[in-house]
Amino acid sequence: MTIHRFFIPIIQFENDLIALSSDISWQLSKVLRLKKGNEIVLFDGSGVEYQVSLDQISPTEVVARKQKEFKNTSEPRIKISLYQSLLPRGNFEQVLQKATEMGVYEFIPIETSRTLFKARDIGDSYLNRWKRIIKEASEQSERAKVPTLSYALTFREGIEKASHEGLVVVPFEHEKKQTVKTLVPLLEKEEKISIFIGPEGGFTTAEIEFALMKKGITISLGPRILKSESAALMIIPIILYIRGELENTNEQRDSVY
Amino acid sequence: MTIHRFFIPIIQFENDLIALSSDISWQLSKVLRLKKGNEIVLFDGSGVEYQVSLDQISPTEVVARKQKEFKNTSEPRIKISLYQSLLPRGNFEQVLQKATEMGVYEFIPIETSRTLFKARDIGDSYLNRWKRIIKEASEQSERAKVPTLSYALTFREGIEKASHEGLVVVPFEHEKKQTVKTLVPLLEKEEKISIFIGPEGGFTTAEIEFALMKKGITISLGPRILKSESAALMIIPIILYIRGELENTNEQRDSVY
Repeated sequence: MTIHRFFIPIIQFENDLIALSSDISWQLSKVLRLKKGNEIVLFDGSGVEYQVSLDQISPTEVVARKQKEFKNTSEPRIKISLYQSLLPRGNFEQVLQKATEMGVYEFIPIETSRTLFKARDIGDSYLNRWKRIIKEASEQSERAKVPTLSYALTFREGIEKASHEGLVVVPFEHEKKQTVKTLVPLLEKEEKISIFIGPEGGFTTAEIEFALMKKGITISLGPRILKSESAALMIIPIILYIRGELENTNEQRDSVY
Repeated sequence: MTIHRFFIPIIQFENDLIALSSDISWQLSKVLRLKKGNEIVLFDGSGVEYQVSLDQISPTEVVARKQKEFKNTSEPRIKISLYQSLLPRGNFEQVLQKATEMGVYEFIPIETSRTLFKARDIGDSYLNRWKRIIKEASEQSERAKVPTLSYALTFREGIEKASHEGLVVVPFEHEKKQTVKTLVPLLEKEEKISIFIGPEGGFTTAEIEFALMKKGITISLGPRILKSESAALMIIPIILYIRGELENTNEQRDSVY
């Protein structure tokens, strides 16, 4: 049986007890219909997780009691920042959801020359919805952290920011020589990799030139043409594989689930 | 500019001319509003493709003239058979669409103990819809072939079939030792790899035992838990990478697009 997990930004016990917010309390009591004595897991992104049992249950406040503390070691050591071009709603959300499961560290939506959306049009209602999707995917995939979601940037702002933070990789359909293999020696030392995914129409020549000027590396993802919402899902698994991030298990946690 | 591609099961020119079906003719004339002299590409899965120009246009019949013949070398040499557990509609279709773009050779929907669908309930209306999704993804991703879609099988039928055809790989959340790296030496010689993706609730112990008895290899996809619709998208890119299938380009074709 799956144990339900909940992300709570700050977890503070008092005599091993914690009162849960009304949102979570409603979900536990009314949606999941959990009973006194049932167990759930709480995590706060620190890597430490708490197995708790439900002590008092009401739709507005559930009080839980700490049973066990353990370490979640499922986070990749390499930090993958995904700069994803804005896409029609469902497609963008698919990327957030699947890339969170896979292990992305942070998301930065970008507006490019050929993006049909403007960064300034991405208001708080979008961001809140997207944050919820990311949070739920983190809970379900048993990650220790919830990836952050930044405000949307223009492509140039994104490249500027990423160029100060580590490896900058730009999959580009007209790149014929460099491939993911080109990244292998570079990935050995890097703590962070920023990946820029273009919109349906691709990047413009001016954008690619700007990225190259800022030490970006263009790569091919192979001879088949990928949709914008699939490109990230092609490169993320390979980077994790190259770095050995699919080798480790999560033993302490495995005793709980 | 993108050139539109159409899959036609049998392409036969007569004096360099070909009459296109009413379906495609309607799409060319009414949906895409192409004009006399515009060019498209036709492919039949043989690996040879034809750049043709539109000669006569009507909503019921378009006649096209061969301009150029070229080879499409975008197909992976390794054949990946994806045995995907049936999933609620949208999720199953996402897998078909994205795995086609990535380069899967064939799809076999499977019913497992914990699948909510029965293989016998998957009728022709589903299969036809799914085939259309696969065909369109092949056209758009510039593949040379359209992956086949088989009738749904039970898990055991699928394992039996796959065990005669090459490597059988079963991602399994409780596998703690073997990972994708385990497959590296095996992948060197194999022509075909069959991947079995379980449903939301995972495979049963009996299913795993049956797969192992038939020489299936269970592997972990890492410490994060993936949804059924994401698991295939995690392993396919890595297999293609390991096999060097992302290294080749499609030069003859690149002159056309």
